[in-house]
Amino acid sequence: MVAEARSVMATLLASIPETMIALRKESAAPGFVREEVAVPTLGPSDVLIRVKKAGICGTDHHIYAWDHWAQRRVKPPITIGHEFMGYVAAIGAAVRSVGVGERVSAEGHIACGHCLLCRTGEGHICERVKIIGVDTDGAFANFIVMPEGNVWRLDPSIPDNVAAVFDPLGNAVHTVMAAGVSTKSVVITGVGSIGLMAIPVARAAGAASVFAVDINPAKLELAARVGADATFLANDPNLIDEILRRTNGDGVDVLLEMSGSGSAIDAGLAMVRNGGRAALLGIPSDDISINLAERIIFKGLTVLGINGRKMFETWYQTEALVKSGRVDIGAIITHVVPFSGYDDAFALMESGVAAKIVMDVDERS
Amino acid sequence: MVAEARSVMATLLASIPETMIALRKESAAPGFVREEVAVPTLGPSDVLIRVKKAGICGTDHHIYAWDHWAQRRVKPPITIGHEFMGYVAAIGAAVRSVGVGERVSAEGHIACGHCLLCRTGEGHICERVKIIGVDTDGAFANFIVMPEGNVWRLDPSIPDNVAAVFDPLGNAVHTVMAAGVSTKSVVITGVGSIGLMAIPVARAAGAASVFAVDINPAKLELAARVGADATFLANDPNLIDEILRRTNGDGVDVLLEMSGSGSAIDAGLAMVRNGGRAALLGIPSDDISINLAERIIFKGLTVLGINGRKMFETWYQTEALVKSGRVDIGAIITHVVPFSGYDDAFALMESGVAAKIVMDVDERS
Amino acid sequence: MVAEARSVMATLLASIPETMIALRKESAAPGFVREEVAVPTLGPSDVLIRVKKAGICGTDHHIYAWDHWAQRRVKPPITIGHEFMGYVAAIGAAVRSVGVGERVSAEGHIACGHCLLCRTGEGHICERVKIIGVDTDGAFANFIVMPEGNVWRLDPSIPDNVAAVFDPLGNAVHTVMAAGVSTKSVVITGVGSIGLMAIPVARAAGAASVFAVDINPAKLELAARVGADATFLANDPNLIDEILRRTNGDGVDVLLEMSGSGSAIDAGLAMVRNGGRAALLGIPSDDISINLAERIIFKGLTVLGINGRKMFETWYQTEALVKSGRVDIGAIITHVVPFSGYDDAFALMESGVAAKIVMDVDERS
Amino acid sequence: MVAEARSVMATLLASIPETMIALRKESAAPGFVREEVAVPTLGPSDVLIRVKKAGICGTDHHIYAWDHWAQRRVKPPITIGHEFMGYVAAIGAAVRSVGVGERVSAEGHIACGHCLLCRTGEGHICERVKIIGVDTDGAFANFIVMPEGNVWRLDPSIPDNVAAVFDPLGNAVHTVMAAGVSTKSVVITGVGSIGLMAIPVARAAGAASVFAVDINPAKLELAARVGADATFLANDPNLIDEILRRTNGDGVDVLLEMSGSGSAIDAGLAMVRNGGRAALLGIPSDDISINLAERIIFKGLTVLGINGRKMFETWYQTEALVKSGRVDIGAIITHVVPFSGYDDAFALMESGVAAKIVMDVDERS
Repeated sequence: MVAEARSVMATLLASIPETMIALRKESAAPGFVREEVAVPTLGPSDVLIRVKKAGICGTDHHIYAWDHWAQRRVKPPITIGHEFMGYVAAIGAAVRSVGVGERVSAEGHIACGHCLLCRTGEGHICERVKIIGVDTDGAFANFIVMPEGNVWRLDPSIPDNVAAVFDPLGNAVHTVMAAGVSTKSVVITGVGSIGLMAIPVARAAGAASVFAVDINPAKLELAARVGADATFLANDPNLIDEILRRTNGDGVDVLLEMSGSGSAIDAGLAMVRNGGRAALLGIPSDDISINLAERIIFKGLTVLGINGRKMFETWYQTEALVKSGRVDIGAIITHVVPFSGYDDAFALMESGVAAKIVMDVDERS
Repeated sequence: MVAEARSVMATLLASIPETMIALRKESAAPGFVREEVAVPTLGPSDVLIRVKKAGICGTDHHIYAWDHWAQRRVKPPITIGHEFMGYVAAIGAAVRSVGVGERVSAEGHIACGHCLLCRTGEGHICERVKIIGVDTDGAFANFIVMPEGNVWRLDPSIPDNVAAVFDPLGNAVHTVMAAGVSTKSVVITGVGSIGLMAIPVARAAGAASVFAVDINPAKLELAARVGADATFLANDPNLIDEILRRTNGDGVDVLLEMSGSGSAIDAGLAMVRNGGRAALLGIPSDDISINLAERIIFKGLTVLGINGRKMFETWYQTEALVKSGRVDIGAIITHVVPFSGYDDAFALMESGVAAKIVMDVDERS
Repeated sequence: MVAEARSVMATLLASIPETMIALRKESAAPGFVREEVAVPTLGPSDVLIRVKKAGICGTDHHIYAWDHWAQRRVKPPITIGHEFMGYVAAIGAAVRSVGVGERVSAEGHIACGHCLLCRTGEGHICERVKIIGVDTDGAFANFIVMPEGNVWRLDPSIPDNVAAVFDPLGNAVHTVMAAGVSTKSVVITGVGSIGLMAIPVARAAGAASVFAVDINPAKLELAARVGADATFLANDPNLIDEILRRTNGDGVDVLLEMSGSGSAIDAGLAMVRNGGRAALLGIPSDDISINLAERIIFKGLTVLGINGRKMFETWYQTEALVKSGRVDIGAIITHVVPFSGYDDAFALMESGVAAKIVMDVDERS
Repeated sequence: MVAEARSVMATLLASIPETMIALRKESAAPGFVREEVAVPTLGPSDVLIRVKKAGICGTDHHIYAWDHWAQRRVKPPITIGHEFMGYVAAIGAAVRSVGVGERVSAEGHIACGHCLLCRTGEGHICERVKIIGVDTDGAFANFIVMPEGNVWRLDPSIPDNVAAVFDPLGNAVHTVMAAGVSTKSVVITGVGSIGLMAIPVARAAGAASVFAVDINPAKLELAARVGADATFLANDPNLIDEILRRTNGDGVDVLLEMSGSGSAIDAGLAMVRNGGRAALLGIPSDDISINLAERIIFKGLTVLGINGRKMFETWYQTEALVKSGRVDIGAIITHVVPFSGYDDAFALMESGVAAKIVMDVDERS
C-alpha cells in the first residue's frame, strides 16, 4: 500500500508538464476555445490538482452562450469549470493536510477568510468570495491550483463520476439540510440536475414524502425513477389541490424551490402549510411580484435564501450520504463525454435531454 | 385578603346587568355606533370578563373607515375591539384555571384547538382562527365572553394601561423573539405603535444596537425617547450608507419590518448583512416586486413571516419583560380617552399624532 | 361507506354494557387480578373508547412485580395499561373533534392544561401530569375514558398492532427527533423494545448509519434484522475502538441512550464525538457516577433528557413515518396474546425472549 | 493619522529586541521564574505581538501551585499566560489581515484547522487544540507569536484592561449565548471572575432576572454590584425554596454552572424548571454522583457542555456587548499589578479577595 502510494506519487511528480489543455473563454463572445496554456504555478499554501473528471453546470452554459449575466460577471480570458475531482500533483511548502497522490475534489468558492462571515462559519456567503471558472481560472483543464483549505480528500468508496459533481450535489444537500426534512412532506419545484439530486437526498435525509414539479415531462420521469413519490406538470390545473389532498388538506411541510421561476415560487409558497419552511435555491433572472401577506406573513413561513455549500458542513453531510449508500445519483448523471466532446455536451444541455453531464478531462484514463 | 376577595367577587356577581354599552359596526358603512346590547351569555368552558380598559388598534381604524380589507373580512353587525384587560365577572361550570374577581387580559385569537397547527404549539397560525372584534363580538363593550383557554391572569405589578395593550406588545415581542436579537444589531422599519414597542423590547431582549426608520419625524423622536440608538427618515438618501457605516460595513444582523411598505421592505432587506435574519410583521396592502436573488438568495437570509402571538410562549415572555421592569412602554401610550370619546380617538389616530391610545371602557373607575 | 359507518356507530352505541373485564392491581402485592368492574362514566369533554388491542410495557411489568418504584408510585386499586387502540364508543356533550365509531389511539399522559409547560407546547413534561394505568385507570380493560384532547384519530393505513404501540414508538420518535439524526452516525445503547423501534425510526429520519449495543445477543440479532448497520455486545472490549474506527476516528454524531445503565451511559458518552448530541431516555434506577469534565464539558456535548412524547408533534411524526411505509416495526412485535393470556405475556417478558407484546383485549375480534 | 500610524510602526519595528522578560515554569515544582529569554521567531503565517497587558486566570494559579492537573498537563519549561492584549510588532510574509502597529488581542486556543470540528465551525473543541501558556509559550512575556488566524483586532472603544481579559469574558459570553437567556430567568452557581462577568453579560443579552449563588459573601456582594437581582449563599437552607418562590414555583429557565462543585451542580439542576437549559462551564475535579432520572431525564432538560469560546462568533458577540456599552466589567477587574508584582497577584488570588487581576506586562506604559 505504502509502496504503491509512493510509486503513484513519484509518477505524479514526474508527470507535471509545462503546458496543458484548457477550455477557455478567450473573448467577450459566445463559445469556448480549447487550447494549450501554461500549467498554473503554486503558492506556499496551494495545492496543484491534476483534474480527472469535471461536471458541466448550467453556469458554464451561461458563459458558453454569453448571456447577460455572463457579460456582467465574467472577464475573459479565463478557464471555465468549477465541478471536478482529480489527484494532487504537487503541494506548496506550507501545506500539511493533504499530500501528493491523494484523490480529491475541492470547494470552488474561495472565500476571503478574514471577514465576519468567514470567521463565523459562513464563508459560503462571504462578500468577497471568488468562484473558480467564473472569477478565476477553473477546472476544465488538466491542472488547477486550489488553496489548501478548499481541498476535500475523497473517501475511496465514492465513484469518480459522483465525486466530480460534489459541488451541485452539495447545493442539493445544503438546501435539504437547511430546510430540515426529517419526517416531513416535501415539494421540489424545478427538477433540473440539482432538483433531481435533491430527491434522493431528501429521502435519505428523512423526508416522509417527496413531490416533484416541473414543466418537462422527461425530467419528471427521471424524478420518479430516483424516488419522487409523485410528480406533477407545473401547468397542471389541479396541482395545488392534488398536493393538498395528499397532505391531509394542510399543504406540504417544506418547499425546495429550484426553478427560479416566479410562477413556480408563487405556486410553491401556496402549497406550503402554515408554519412551514421554504428554501430558495433557484435564481430568478428578474424581480418577481409576490403577495407577501398571503404567501409568507399570515402563514408564518420561514423562508431561507440558499447559496453555495456550507464550508465544510455540507461536504461532510454529502460524503456521509454517498458513502453510506443512502444517496445514489448514478441515474442523474445521464452522460459522460470526452474532454474533446464539449460542444456535444453543450448541445445536449440545450436540448433538455441531459440531466447531469460529466466530462473525462483526463483522457488517458 | 380572602375576605376582601370574597367581597369583590360578590360585588362582581351581583353587578352583572342584563344589558351593556358596546361600540359596534352595525352596517356596511364607515363609522361605529355606541349602543345598548345584551350582555353575552356564557358556555360551560367560557369566562365572562368585565372590560376595564381597551387599546385601539390600526385594525379598528380600518373597520371604522370601512376600507377594502374591512369590507371583505368583517360581517356586521359586530362589536369591535380586541386589546383589553378587566376582571372576571363569571365563569362557566367547567372552568377551573381562573376564578371570579381575577384581573385578566386575553388572547384575542380563538384557535380551533384540533388541527395540526393547534396540536403542535402553532395555534397562532391555525387556519380556522377567529379574531375577537373582527370575526366575533369584541372588547369595546362592558363585557366580553372568552374561552377559558384564552384568558391570561395578570401579574399585579403590570399597570392597567399596559395590560390593556398586551396584544400589540405581544406582536412586538413575538417578532423580536422570532428574529433573535441577543448581542445583535437591529433595524426597525416602521415605528407605528408596534414598531415603537419593539424598540424597548429589542433592547431588553439583548440587542446591542437598535436603529429606527420611519417617514414621520414625530414617531422618530418618540423612537429615540424609548431607546433607539439612531433614527433615520425613510427617504434619507444616505440611509443605507449610514447603516453600513455603523455596522462595520457589514449591515445589520436583524431587520424587523413593521411598515408593510414595499420600498421599506426593499431597503430593509438591503440593510441586512449576508446570513442575517428578517422578521416581517407589517402587512403590504398589495403585491410587492422584489429582487429575490439579490435581496434574499445570494445573501443567505432567513426571512420569517410573523403573525399574532405564540400561544402562550409570547405571553410569558411579555410578562417577564414588563414584570422585571426591563420594558416600559409608558411613553408609547400617548393618550387615554373615555369610552364615550371614541370619535376623538380615531381622529387622533388619523392625525398621526397618537402612538397608542387606550380607552377607559369602564367609566366608573 | 356512510351507511356502513352509521351501522358501526349504531352497533357501538347499542353495545356499551354496564360492566367490563379489566386487569387490575387490587392490592399492594405482586400480580394482577382480571375481574369484572363497572364501565367508566363519561364527563362532558370525555371520550369512551372500546379497547381493541393494548401493548404491554416494561412499566406494566414493574407494577406486576411490585418493585420499589411501583410501591412508591402506584396506589391500588387501579386498572393497568397505557398503550392501546380501539374504537370510540361514546362521546361527551362538549366533544367536537372526534365521533362515535372512529378508530383511535390516545396519548396516555393527561397534562393539567393550565401551567407554563402546558401553555408553551411542553405538556409532556407538565409537573402535574397523570399517566393512565399508573395514576388513573388504564387500558387493560374493555373500555377506557380519555379526555377529548388526548384522543388520536388513526389513519386507516396503520395496522392495529402498530397503532396499539404508538406510545412506545412515540418515545422512540421523540428521542430520535430531539437528537436530530439527518445525515448523522448514531449509536443506540440498549435495544429493548423502544431501542429496537429507534433503529428503523432513526434510519427513516435520515441517519447515515446506526449502531446498536446491548448485553443480549438475541436483541442484537433482532436489531440487525430491523436495520442496524452493526451490532455490538456491551461488554465487547473493542467496542469503543470499533465505533471510532467506523467513524473516521471522531466518534458518532449522536447517542441514543435507552438502557438506563450507568456503564452504558458512560461508554455511550465516550463514543460520541466532540460537539455531538446525546439523548437520554433510559431511566437509571440509582444515582450514577460520571466524569462530567471529560464526558460532557470538554467535549462540548449537548445532552437531552427525554420524557414521553411531544403532544402532539411526536404523534404527527410517528404517523408520517408509519403511513409513508418508511418505518415498519412488524418484526419488533414478537408476540400477540389473548387478553386472558396476560400471565404468559409477563412470563415471556421476564424470559427476555419477547421484544414487544400486544394483547388482544377485545377477544371478539 | 496615516503619518502617526507610520511613525508608530517604525518605532515598533525598530524596537524589537533580541531578548525579553518572561514569567516561566522552569521545572516541575511550585512557583514561577521571571527571566530573560529570546524573543520568539516568526513563521510566514505568524504575527509577533508586543504584550501590553495580561489577565491572570485560575489556570495560571493551578500551574503556579503545581497541582495534580498541572502536573499531568504542563511540560516545563514553558512561558505562562493566555489572556492578553498588545500591539503587532511584526508580521510574517504571508500575513494579510493584520498590520504592524495594530492593537490586538488573540484567541489562545490554537486549533489544528483541518479536522471535522475545525472545518465545521467548532475549532474551539478541536481534539488537537494547543493552548498558549499551557501547551506552548504564552503571554506573560514582552512578546508572543500567534498564528494570523488567531489574532483579533481591537475596536478603539475597548479599554486595555477589558481587552486583556477578552478570553475569560468570552467564556462567559459563550456560556450565556449557548444557554440562550433572552426574556429568561437565570441562576449562576459560582461567581468567581467568569461567573461575575456572566452577570452583566446575561443582563445585556436579555435575561429578565439573574440570581447568583456562591459560598463567598464578598463575591456575592460584588455580584449584586454588577447586576444580580438577588444573591444567595450556597449553604442557605432556603436556597431552592427561595428560587422557586421568585419564579412562580416553576424554577429558573436557565442554569449557568460556573463552580465545578458537585453539590452546586446538583442544587443548580434542581432549581431549573422542567424543559429548561443548563450550561456547564465549571470543571469538577472528580467524578460526581448524579440522579440523572430526577435531575435531567424526567425534567426534559437540555444540558450543554461549554468549552472555550466559539471562534470567532463569541469574539464578535463579546465585542458587540462591550463596544455598545451594554457590558461593563470594570468593577470585576479588582486589581491591576505590575509585571514584577506577580507574586503579590497570586497571593491576592489565593486570599479570595481579588476577582480579576490584570498585569501591566509592558511596564513602560
